[in-house]
Amino acid sequence: MSSTKPPGGTRDFLPADVRRREYVIGVVRDVYERYGFEPLETPAFENIETLLGKYGEEGNKLIFKILRRGEHEGSGDADLALRYDLTVPLARVVAQYQNDLPRFFKRYQIQPVWRADRPAKGRFREFYQCDIDIIGTTSTLVEADILSAVSEVLRRLGFEDFNIRLNHRQLLAAILRMAGVPAALHDNAVVAIDKLDKIGRDGVKHELVARGVPEVAAAKCVFLCEPIDHAPSMRKALEADNETAGTHALDQLEEIERLVAMSGPSRIIIDTSLARGLSYYTGAIMEISVPDLSGSLGGGGRYDNLVGMFLGRDLPACGFSLGLERIIVVMTERGMFPESVVGGGVDLMVTIWNHDTRGDSVALAGDLRKAGLRVDLYPEADKIGKQFKYAAARQVPFVAILGDDERARGEVAVKDLRSGDQTSVARADVASFVKSRLHG
Amino acid sequence: MSSTKPPGGTRDFLPADVRRREYVIGVVRDVYERYGFEPLETPAFENIETLLGKYGEEGNKLIFKILRRGEHEGSGDADLALRYDLTVPLARVVAQYQNDLPRFFKRYQIQPVWRADRPAKGRFREFYQCDIDIIGTTSTLVEADILSAVSEVLRRLGFEDFNIRLNHRQLLAAILRMAGVPAALHDNAVVAIDKLDKIGRDGVKHELVARGVPEVAAAKCVFLCEPIDHAPSMRKALEADNETAGTHALDQLEEIERLVAMSGPSRIIIDTSLARGLSYYTGAIMEISVPDLSGSLGGGGRYDNLVGMFLGRDLPACGFSLGLERIIVVMTERGMFPESVVGGGVDLMVTIWNHDTRGDSVALAGDLRKAGLRVDLYPEADKIGKQFKYAAARQVPFVAILGDDERARGEVAVKDLRSGDQTSVARADVASFVKSRLHG
Repeated sequence: MSSTKPPGGTRDFLPADVRRREYVIGVVRDVYERYGFEPLETPAFENIETLLGKYGEEGNKLIFKILRRGEHEGSGDADLALRYDLTVPLARVVAQYQNDLPRFFKRYQIQPVWRADRPAKGRFREFYQCDIDIIGTTSTLVEADILSAVSEVLRRLGFEDFNIRLNHRQLLAAILRMAGVPAALHDNAVVAIDKLDKIGRDGVKHELVARGVPEVAAAKCVFLCEPIDHAPSMRKALEADNETAGTHALDQLEEIERLVAMSGPSRIIIDTSLARGLSYYTGAIMEISVPDLSGSLGGGGRYDNLVGMFLGRDLPACGFSLGLERIIVVMTERGMFPESVVGGGVDLMVTIWNHDTRGDSVALAGDLRKAGLRVDLYPEADKIGKQFKYAAARQVPFVAILGDDERARGEVAVKDLRSGDQTSVARADVASFVKSRLHG
Repeated sequence: MSSTKPPGGTRDFLPADVRRREYVIGVVRDVYERYGFEPLETPAFENIETLLGKYGEEGNKLIFKILRRGEHEGSGDADLALRYDLTVPLARVVAQYQNDLPRFFKRYQIQPVWRADRPAKGRFREFYQCDIDIIGTTSTLVEADILSAVSEVLRRLGFEDFNIRLNHRQLLAAILRMAGVPAALHDNAVVAIDKLDKIGRDGVKHELVARGVPEVAAAKCVFLCEPIDHAPSMRKALEADNETAGTHALDQLEEIERLVAMSGPSRIIIDTSLARGLSYYTGAIMEISVPDLSGSLGGGGRYDNLVGMFLGRDLPACGFSLGLERIIVVMTERGMFPESVVGGGVDLMVTIWNHDTRGDSVALAGDLRKAGLRVDLYPEADKIGKQFKYAAARQVPFVAILGDDERARGEVAVKDLRSGDQTSVARADVASFVKSRLHG
């Protein structure tokens, strides 16, 4: 007998799990639609050559490959591979449908991806990504639109205490030049700076040195990359060093901050210590976090050289990926889900009085469902106490009983299983009676 | 350069496709929730031994197998396989969480499955299944509940002309016995009878004979299995032959028909020619069709020996699978989608008057989004005519223009791109102005 557990690193989502996930996805979708983003879905697998070589050597190893079928199965070759992220499929779609897509393509995509990482707490082999991207323009309105949309998602979900850290790859490069970090070591230095909030200033300095950055440059680097909003002094330093690219980057960040503030409260901090690991970013970079979670709730940035990979030319793009799994963890821990989501899926259960009156129970259930209630129907003519017990175990708040007396009077007995109160209600009034008491 | 098409047999869903799919899935979910079904989701892949041997020899060949990773990749062995249907995962879940699930588990599951079928028109390698099942009881209330729920889904989607054909495996067996078909040929005969609406009475008779059924038995078989509701004469024939199992099956079908009629208009026809290919059905079988589609919109039945496969004991179950892909095809062909679904994803686009007034455009977009409109923001300070053209090409019905005069008066010019009418509206009234004219 094989195990009945789901494969390592994957999860079964039982009803309460699916409801929480669907609630979050529903809010995300609704907000992104209001911001004019359009939904895209791509197949679970891609031709293997579409994915190989796109995620570095380490990524290649983590791709799930699908065996060829039929007579070729014995060859052990793979011709397909499971989606590893939502960016490469987007790049493929942009190339394939370039004549059908709008010049500025704003898309959202919420689908699972698969990575053969070693499973660990909070690290899965199947997990959802939740991406927005705007393609086709270098305008900073796009960064602002994305940050406003993401902020609205978090507010609608009930997050009040999130922070948006904002930086710019060109500003980071200018800082590294000003600190005297050799150009060949910039990528390496970014990786070290990225760890500032984890290992602290001294830790970053040590790591910079270990990565070959001269001691003095490392110290200056740490001094310049502080997690505070010190734009005015930064501007002076940039101007003093004639760092026009850095000054321009800082202009962009301040512009983004100003534009976001036009549509609502902005929670942006320009933070020159934000580095974000991915080497493909070319402009603004951003990350959202909350105080009680190490790591971020999501991040993104501008990457102008990637989405055009299948077109053979650069295509400006800016994107943001919300960490759906993390959002659900934090919301669950903080008890942020509304009662209607966590309170179970059934409002009322219609009981069966006896075999001969089953039709009456079916008819009542039908009417209450038409009235918008979520109604379960007990399937057997069991003892009524057993039916009550079943409903209580499922956390159904109300049961309806069609006893002989009630039926004779055109009424229904409605029992509130939370309080134990039982009331006889005219049959036509049951729906409104229950609705008024459901979440009161 | 590799192809940018999706892999053979799979599809990219562009925004208009996703909207249609999400609309149908939303209705299905809402109705199933009202009927007390609860959502379940399982991983895209299962351990390979969970799936192998569950779908017959032909099915085994159609399973997508995933290559082992890391040092084992070279072995060419597979340890995981993509979900082939939603029933085996359900059986696994029922075994794994038997102590957490309710005694009567009513679940719905809407997820893609993958089959390495040869791609053809309307046949895909990745497609959605949309299943409901009620587990844990042999009560006919369950068949009735399922048929009511499925009927409500179709009515809510706008189908008025569907038919539900209903039969029973035990009734079919009784008919075959009465016709004199040898017991060893029953499974074979069912396959032939299943083709009645495709190849006609003579065709079925020939196929029965070709499959070894004696000429006289084949003729009687075709005579008894007619696609009309002739239950009274069938009952007499069953009673005359002392076919108590058959009579009991007919009782059940009439009971199901009566119960479904209690909660709304029933469109059930008891049709003794309905066979349904799958050999695992044990009781009632059902299929829903519409006149202009050969094949069905969905089907199901009772299968009491399958869901317990990982428990090592029988577990009564009844299920129904809606053909999501076919429903979408028929609804598209018939133009059944509401205007709000096919009319594009954006209600209004805010234009950019010039670089310096971008913040005003951002603020207006923010306010209109808060008011519930789906609002796009043009990202660049292009010529206004170019911005109009872009909006028109995307089928956006309204654009907002914040010209110097309008801004000075606290107004916004709103242009209806469908009629060409342009109106100057007080800034605070733009949302209600647009809403009142959107789908009017």
